[in-house]
Amino acid sequence: MAFTFQINHDVQFNHDADLLAKAEANRPTLQHAVVKPQRLVKIVADDTAFNGFRAEPSDQNIQQLPSYLLKKDDKLVLDFGDHQVGHFAIDIDAVGSPMDAPLTLHLTFAETPAEIGVDAASYDGWLSSSWIAEETLHLDVLPTHLALPRRYAFRYVEIDVKDTSPKWQASFSNPTVTTSSAVKMSAVPAVKIDDPELKRIDEVSIKTLHDCMQDVFEDGPKRDRRLWLGDLRLQALANYATFDDATLVKRCLYLFGGMTATDGKIPANVFTSPKLTPDDTFMYDYGLFFISTLKDFNDRYHDQQVLTDLYPIAKKELTVALTQVNAQGLLVPNEDWPVFVDWSNDIDKTAAGQAILIYVLKQFVVLAHAMADPEAAKYDELIQTYTDAAIQTYYDADQGLFVSGPKREVNIASQVWMVLAHVLDDQANEALMTAAVAKCFPVTGIATPYMYHHIAAALFEAHHQADGIQLIKDYWGKMVSLGADTFFEAFEPEDLQFSPYGSPILNSYCHAWSCTPTYLIRKYVV
Amino acid sequence: MAFTFQINHDVQFNHDADLLAKAEANRPTLQHAVVKPQRLVKIVADDTAFNGFRAEPSDQNIQQLPSYLLKKDDKLVLDFGDHQVGHFAIDIDAVGSPMDAPLTLHLTFAETPAEIGVDAASYDGWLSSSWIAEETLHLDVLPTHLALPRRYAFRYVEIDVKDTSPKWQASFSNPTVTTSSAVKMSAVPAVKIDDPELKRIDEVSIKTLHDCMQDVFEDGPKRDRRLWLGDLRLQALANYATFDDATLVKRCLYLFGGMTATDGKIPANVFTSPKLTPDDTFMYDYGLFFISTLKDFNDRYHDQQVLTDLYPIAKKELTVALTQVNAQGLLVPNEDWPVFVDWSNDIDKTAAGQAILIYVLKQFVVLAHAMADPEAAKYDELIQTYTDAAIQTYYDADQGLFVSGPKREVNIASQVWMVLAHVLDDQANEALMTAAVAKCFPVTGIATPYMYHHIAAALFEAHHQADGIQLIKDYWGKMVSLGADTFFEAFEPEDLQFSPYGSPILNSYCHAWSCTPTYLIRKYVV
Repeated sequence: MAFTFQINHDVQFNHDADLLAKAEANRPTLQHAVVKPQRLVKIVADDTAFNGFRAEPSDQNIQQLPSYLLKKDDKLVLDFGDHQVGHFAIDIDAVGSPMDAPLTLHLTFAETPAEIGVDAASYDGWLSSSWIAEETLHLDVLPTHLALPRRYAFRYVEIDVKDTSPKWQASFSNPTVTTSSAVKMSAVPAVKIDDPELKRIDEVSIKTLHDCMQDVFEDGPKRDRRLWLGDLRLQALANYATFDDATLVKRCLYLFGGMTATDGKIPANVFTSPKLTPDDTFMYDYGLFFISTLKDFNDRYHDQQVLTDLYPIAKKELTVALTQVNAQGLLVPNEDWPVFVDWSNDIDKTAAGQAILIYVLKQFVVLAHAMADPEAAKYDELIQTYTDAAIQTYYDADQGLFVSGPKREVNIASQVWMVLAHVLDDQANEALMTAAVAKCFPVTGIATPYMYHHIAAALFEAHHQADGIQLIKDYWGKMVSLGADTFFEAFEPEDLQFSPYGSPILNSYCHAWSCTPTYLIRKYVV
Repeated sequence: MAFTFQINHDVQFNHDADLLAKAEANRPTLQHAVVKPQRLVKIVADDTAFNGFRAEPSDQNIQQLPSYLLKKDDKLVLDFGDHQVGHFAIDIDAVGSPMDAPLTLHLTFAETPAEIGVDAASYDGWLSSSWIAEETLHLDVLPTHLALPRRYAFRYVEIDVKDTSPKWQASFSNPTVTTSSAVKMSAVPAVKIDDPELKRIDEVSIKTLHDCMQDVFEDGPKRDRRLWLGDLRLQALANYATFDDATLVKRCLYLFGGMTATDGKIPANVFTSPKLTPDDTFMYDYGLFFISTLKDFNDRYHDQQVLTDLYPIAKKELTVALTQVNAQGLLVPNEDWPVFVDWSNDIDKTAAGQAILIYVLKQFVVLAHAMADPEAAKYDELIQTYTDAAIQTYYDADQGLFVSGPKREVNIASQVWMVLAHVLDDQANEALMTAAVAKCFPVTGIATPYMYHHIAAALFEAHHQADGIQLIKDYWGKMVSLGADTFFEAFEPEDLQFSPYGSPILNSYCHAWSCTPTYLIRKYVV
């Protein structure tokens, strides 16, 4: 998740020492592996390739790497064969006369070929250029073992010798990445998936999740690298189906639980370094998804201590969320506390927001009963009230679809969330998705795997099994066909050049909210 | 010293373990001091300023530094008030919302305003751009104490915030440089110099020498940063008159003595990191100056052990040097083993080379007698032979000047070195310099303080006291008037834009071979 800037300096936050101590107690021990590049490649401009560039085998042999002597402006590109998250290191020597000037070295770390092919200096977008994964280094003394202090996410590394001197050249050897993750790939139980395309989509999903599971569930190991609630909910679901790591989810739940605003709102994301800091960004649906995540965690592990600790936080969040609902039982849009749903601001989100509130309320009620909360019945009533209001206000019986906003807009998000919230009965839900597919497919204007996940999930929930599988293949399968080692932050199948930042070099190509096909496949398909 | 590239990969070197152990035993303990900037400045383009830029006081107050919040593209320039050699550190924090992107920071270290004013990306000269003192850093987590691992030479530091994010700004505090030198400024004995201009020139000379005295006598702490024999000879002379540090000279003599080519030649310079390595560059006069430096050291300290250890090295160097002399007693120019004299290649160096050989022979003979070398008398004879040959071949009695090369060129270098070698008697020497001044002054086309030193020294040696003082004022005094905190590597008073590298940003503005006015003033003037 990224894309929205809110600045709310005046918000006061709780720092609950007990809950944060539990977050700390559940900090993972990162797993490390040393990975070597598989080959040397050239990055070649190609209009038919994803973002206009492809990697093709170089004439040079990675086994002879140290024998390639690089002078001013010479370059090499290492291909590590798959997506990596970790610390890069390489040995560098000077060959020739004694080293009479520093070595100036430029390194570019790229998840995809375009991040090397596109000139970084050309970037002029609104997102911080600080995220461009490049370094310029001056090395006064060679030989040296260069071990970079920052963590990078990449498959390719471009080594660009900016200058030596006429008297010597640079030689490189032993490039490695020491990867990190909270989990091991080997922890995932094997599942028989007959369809080879789904099997590959499942693998790439799992790799995406693996590379995002670090000290917290990160949204993307290249960019942002932090814990967002909306992403956490989906990562946790994928995790239960694969790595089944209870600890990291528990840690993240406690982090959010320990850093709520004093009015009860849960921030959309938190920072964990250099110290625990809640972001001053709030999104209505993301805050509610704390409840969803707690409910899903409880379903999976039935951990009464976690529930007892965090139920009051969930209830406070819900209580403040309910202040946005009017007397008719309708969620009233509020620009200062927006419903996210998707990056697109071209869709009206009123109906979807209403559905999300109902979706979460239904999960909350389960927790309230588990906690024997005497107020549980009150929430049962609210579900009915809000559901009735939703159908009365937003359901257009003539179209068999939900409309949203003053222009009575029909968009896919409204239908999907109404299905997921089971606002209608199962039969009507199935009919609703039939109408939605007829009206809104093929989906356009949606760039987030996050929204595509909910569309696919709604198809499966509404017994559109074949449509669900086809959507997974059309969307995530399309990424695989473009060479994805991990699934992307942003992807519009109808516009392969789409970037929310105006340049492919800022996109994150391993982004947690895209990891869910493994959950969908293992829950609904296998 | 810099400017010439030789590549001689086939040369074999001795590594004399005993001599190199003595070099190691005389390694200095570096002295450190923590220095803070004095003010904030703006670098302003100004056609009338040295290299087109000047520093003027900023509206901002260094005392309020942490209160200045820098966003994308904001800059600050710290002025440390004087030339510094050392390690830079600064505290950096993020102010505003939580830090949601790395900080990209560009730092430029500048001895003079132009090194900030001129765009580094515009540099396209032949010398390695790796010497440009700039860094681009990505900081993932703030606050941090940034302590740069490299040593820089500078007075000004430009802090250029390349990017933050719209949500926060960068704040800087506690900038410091931890300086290093083998010596302390307070070690220099006070000398009464009535002339304020000479007094300032003396101070700047001493600061220049101080900042070049590190683990070895460096040629320049900004660039090259290594031990050159020609520079060592002058630094040692200035050192005897000021810091009087025997140890560092001894160390450097042993370094050259321990790493000679197997044929006896002494390299023009040596590297000391990561391991002791002689450069594959040989210059005829620089090699001979090992003898001069040993002689000057012996005059100052009468250290019999040093003489005993290094006399055989000196004799071998002389022996191989003498192979370049023909039967008439004339040094024959050899492109593969050039006589340096000065950077200028517009002057014929044959006569100057002959004079340098005689100059050194006279010093060698003193050492030979001190060592009771039975061959000492042979060298006495050579002095006479070479002197006679020099006068017969190069002295033009009609002009009262020495000529050089097939075109019988009259240049300042020939006269100066013939004077310094005392090829003529004292009276004739004085007349020679009178004729030289009449013919060659004002000097043009000479850019090295190294050559200017020899011109000034020759004036003093030939009893042209007033001319010597005037030359010091016209040359080094001119640098002071342009704002020099230390004296430059290259300076042509008649062409203030001169750079051997095609750009002022590659010039070194604290360069050892320019430190000699303190020696000349303290020896000849005070």
